[in-house]
Amino acid sequence: MSNRKVKVYCPATVANLVCGFDILGLALQDPQDIMEVWEKESPGIEIIPDERYHLPVRPEENVAGASLIALIEEAQLTTGFTIKIDKRIKPGSGLGSSAASSAGAVVAANYLLGNRFSKNDLVRFAMNGEKVASGVKHADNITPCIFGGITLIRAIHPLDIVALNVPDLFVTVVHPQIEVKTSDARQILRKEVQLKDAIRQWGNIAGLVTGFMKNDYDLIGRSLEDVIIEPVRSILIPGFDTVKKRCREAGALGGGISGSGPSIFMLSKENKEAAACEMIMQEEFDRLGIEYKTYLTRINVQGILVEETR
Amino acid sequence: MSNRKVKVYCPATVANLVCGFDILGLALQDPQDIMEVWEKESPGIEIIPDERYHLPVRPEENVAGASLIALIEEAQLTTGFTIKIDKRIKPGSGLGSSAASSAGAVVAANYLLGNRFSKNDLVRFAMNGEKVASGVKHADNITPCIFGGITLIRAIHPLDIVALNVPDLFVTVVHPQIEVKTSDARQILRKEVQLKDAIRQWGNIAGLVTGFMKNDYDLIGRSLEDVIIEPVRSILIPGFDTVKKRCREAGALGGGISGSGPSIFMLSKENKEAAACEMIMQEEFDRLGIEYKTYLTRINVQGILVEETR
Repeated sequence: MSNRKVKVYCPATVANLVCGFDILGLALQDPQDIMEVWEKESPGIEIIPDERYHLPVRPEENVAGASLIALIEEAQLTTGFTIKIDKRIKPGSGLGSSAASSAGAVVAANYLLGNRFSKNDLVRFAMNGEKVASGVKHADNITPCIFGGITLIRAIHPLDIVALNVPDLFVTVVHPQIEVKTSDARQILRKEVQLKDAIRQWGNIAGLVTGFMKNDYDLIGRSLEDVIIEPVRSILIPGFDTVKKRCREAGALGGGISGSGPSIFMLSKENKEAAACEMIMQEEFDRLGIEYKTYLTRINVQGILVEETR
Repeated sequence: MSNRKVKVYCPATVANLVCGFDILGLALQDPQDIMEVWEKESPGIEIIPDERYHLPVRPEENVAGASLIALIEEAQLTTGFTIKIDKRIKPGSGLGSSAASSAGAVVAANYLLGNRFSKNDLVRFAMNGEKVASGVKHADNITPCIFGGITLIRAIHPLDIVALNVPDLFVTVVHPQIEVKTSDARQILRKEVQLKDAIRQWGNIAGLVTGFMKNDYDLIGRSLEDVIIEPVRSILIPGFDTVKKRCREAGALGGGISGSGPSIFMLSKENKEAAACEMIMQEEFDRLGIEYKTYLTRINVQGILVEETR
């Protein structure tokens, strides 16, 4: 038994990308969680939590723990892991905080085990963490977190992941410090949608994917429209309509709710426009008197980075 | 006033492409309608119909006529056109027969007018023909007919057309000679769909478009799945399930209903597999005792071809 230890950098992620509910996502360069993971000789999982947040430390209730349990079972390990989490992606931000922990834990463990599992396996393990976090085994944050870049989940059963081309884009994000639970944000969605709305949505999805593949920024901008989810969920986010409208007027290609919110993201072709978006976001949430944090960042193309330490 | 005359070759088209209901389509090299169009000094439209089919000759009731009326109005012409139609794409086949006539008429007239309208304008005019044919101004046959290749209609209002990459594919088509009216095929569709089915559908659409853009044949094959329209419409087409199942087993990437049917199409990477599909189609409709016609063809990348004649 070695005492190898790794540090993993786990990027925040933006799921859905406006029209691609449950299928599209991208990884951000900032913020990132940092986790340290090392093997221990006794079986089981020990979690050293981030003291800033009151996250569960019992492995089966902790997203990183639940993901690792799945990996340990499939690997039939008799040893265990210790995890120390430096959480920089705020839980409940809509920026894939739970996915970062879930994915980070299994990527780190897999590295320590000599990379015996594929990235697809790791996504599958980490989905158990998402189940703990939101009750649903969704993969649209985990996938870009592990793969980096912009990812498509064509299907969940069996898991079919497609890496898309990544155009040169700037991403501006605002996290207004209000609480929107993923489970609540799911419950307010209607279970049925109008066929005509679904058709409009899949036109936009096809347009967005084609825009990414062709580096066609205008097409990306025209396709960033969601007629199904956003009209319902945006009600939960004060300032959403104003921020979106003003950012587009300021030259952003478009954007919307990050995951199930409350964070809002905007894609821009140039830094100048992305900076204008950040200023608009700051102005709007200052005006509303809501605490917030903004990020002006880029797409992270490498996904989780593993660094071996002593 | 010249007496210029053009001959246009108008390709058959496959709309929907399984999962892309109302947004995707491709043009075929075979069959094609041939139309002759020339200017006449008196206003109005004269239609010399194909004697094999009893198609309306009053311009406002004829798909080519209705399309030309829209063009003549917008061009504010005081002259008219004569159209002679050699219809080789059987009406009611689901292979874009009405679109070929609608699109051919306006492409020909536009050529005679010195190409004053854009392709997007021509699609808009020709949609009036589709309205006459099926009651709905859909553009998913007209667009590939005019543009060639594989096309995406991201949105109808305003019209947003995107040309996709065209992988090297063989297309096998069978047209069983039974009647399925587009208007009937639309009426049996439910107006609401389950959100979970819509999500699965847009995963497939994103996968199919990505497959086309990357020439990823496996991804194309995995994405050729329709959980919304096909389960309802395929009931109207005897032999559908067997043909589809056997063609996939024989190596076809996949396929489904062409437009609203009754034609069935299959995409294959190699001629050998496409030929196997044709044999399966022949066997199945022979067995069912239903008259049919098959085509083993390629994707037409140029769209409607205009030839000036005397």
